[in-house]
Amino acid sequence: MELLSSHRCFDGEQRFYRHESATIGLPMRFAVYLPPQALKGAKCATLFYLAGLTCTEETFMIKAGAQRLAAELGLILIAPDTSPRGANLPGEADSWDFGLAAGFYLDATQAPWNRHYRMYSYITEELHTLVNRELPVDAKRLGIFGHSMGGHGALVLALKQPDLFRSVSAFAPIAAPSQCPWGEKAFNGYLGSDRSTWAAWDASQLMLKREHVPFPNGILIDQGLEDKFLARQLHPEKFKTACDQAGQPLTLRMQAGYDHGYYFMSTFMEDHLRFHARNLT
Amino acid sequence: MELLSSHRCFDGEQRFYRHESATIGLPMRFAVYLPPQALKGAKCATLFYLAGLTCTEETFMIKAGAQRLAAELGLILIAPDTSPRGANLPGEADSWDFGLAAGFYLDATQAPWNRHYRMYSYITEELHTLVNRELPVDAKRLGIFGHSMGGHGALVLALKQPDLFRSVSAFAPIAAPSQCPWGEKAFNGYLGSDRSTWAAWDASQLMLKREHVPFPNGILIDQGLEDKFLARQLHPEKFKTACDQAGQPLTLRMQAGYDHGYYFMSTFMEDHLRFHARNLT
Repeated sequence: MELLSSHRCFDGEQRFYRHESATIGLPMRFAVYLPPQALKGAKCATLFYLAGLTCTEETFMIKAGAQRLAAELGLILIAPDTSPRGANLPGEADSWDFGLAAGFYLDATQAPWNRHYRMYSYITEELHTLVNRELPVDAKRLGIFGHSMGGHGALVLALKQPDLFRSVSAFAPIAAPSQCPWGEKAFNGYLGSDRSTWAAWDASQLMLKREHVPFPNGILIDQGLEDKFLARQLHPEKFKTACDQAGQPLTLRMQAGYDHGYYFMSTFMEDHLRFHARNLT
Repeated sequence: MELLSSHRCFDGEQRFYRHESATIGLPMRFAVYLPPQALKGAKCATLFYLAGLTCTEETFMIKAGAQRLAAELGLILIAPDTSPRGANLPGEADSWDFGLAAGFYLDATQAPWNRHYRMYSYITEELHTLVNRELPVDAKRLGIFGHSMGGHGALVLALKQPDLFRSVSAFAPIAAPSQCPWGEKAFNGYLGSDRSTWAAWDASQLMLKREHVPFPNGILIDQGLEDKFLARQLHPEKFKTACDQAGQPLTLRMQAGYDHGYYFMSTFMEDHLRFHARNLT
């Protein structure tokens, strides 16, 4: 775990790390915000943030304005990169919605992607273990959230591991990826054409299969009504239907006038951080 | 004035504009944040923000986290670009501290720069007139602030036009540009080697020449002590000395642990916006 840079921010520290990932088989980068409480030695509740298509480990820390509240609430923030880098696979850089910066937070089963594109195992096992060991993370108080592709990732990781992540929220998630062009392209490429294998990575389908309500304190989703991807790619209403059927409380807020970007997210970031802080204390 | 994009943000609007600038002789871009009060028709106090080397009109709006407070305080924020774009002058793009993205907020006198590099007149006359005419700017309540090269710009523009800008602050400004490598390179290029012409664009020298205290409510400067440019380029102590001699109240805060970037600025952004809001009401 090599510290690439560190910047004082709201009396805490904004850090960027690089490490050799065994799961990915390549070096990976991630960002960490340590609130002042963590610098003073306290174990802190920790949120993983998963970014969207085209983003890196830097995007959230630069654009979201989350550090102010994290400092106030004593939350550690951890943002991994959005895909492996440097695999040099054929076609990896041909499109912005598949391959580089588009790892979709799953474990690919199809060659050649299955060797490196294993973001699910990377985050839930290797990165999770690493930050628990090296940083003042309170392992019993983990939450996860994300945006767009990373909103999909947050919902899926939380639903697959509700004992690991005790709180989950999302901004404009790809909420039913099996039924939208972004998800179909990614799942065809990473998982193959057998759609029966897709359900394990689709938040709406995972929710329907839950036998118990995984998050009794509720799930929070914000979605802008002027989001140009809403009608074709995101389908929060399908996730809502699944939550209703499963008895999972969901607060789905449709925000008039807001689009898909970080100006939208920064507006509601405080609500999400306070939501997680409440769930984790 | 062509609207390039608009994004809802904290119940206000983050807008990006382009216009044909007569002063610059080229198209120019600028960013505007309109708080909800402005959208409802109220004339609002307005802050011009001048960014640093390598930045554009987008940088502040993306990284500084200022919109939340601007919405709360009812402040319009206006961020111009940092230089002309498209002049295609020889050497314009050769270095990151001269030419493109390094206009230094002055009016060049030396060929070939004197044709387009006129950021001082552009901001104080053309852009100022334009936003007064087209946006709900309260012309009697203008303030200015900036970072590094833009901190120099904010201090110089305010000291040259204290009747126009009634409030001024800066983050890590180039406070005595005649006496540092960045300023010497820029002034030699834009103004020529006769140093007597430089005083009109040097905040510390302008302050010494003031006959009256220009800002009786004070000037606010934040400076990080871990800023790698502090010792060689910034010299806030020279500006402090000039203020002391002129009787100008200055709050110069040396912030332990903080560096030169937006993680530093975002931490103290609230203090600056509240400072300006107090001065302008």
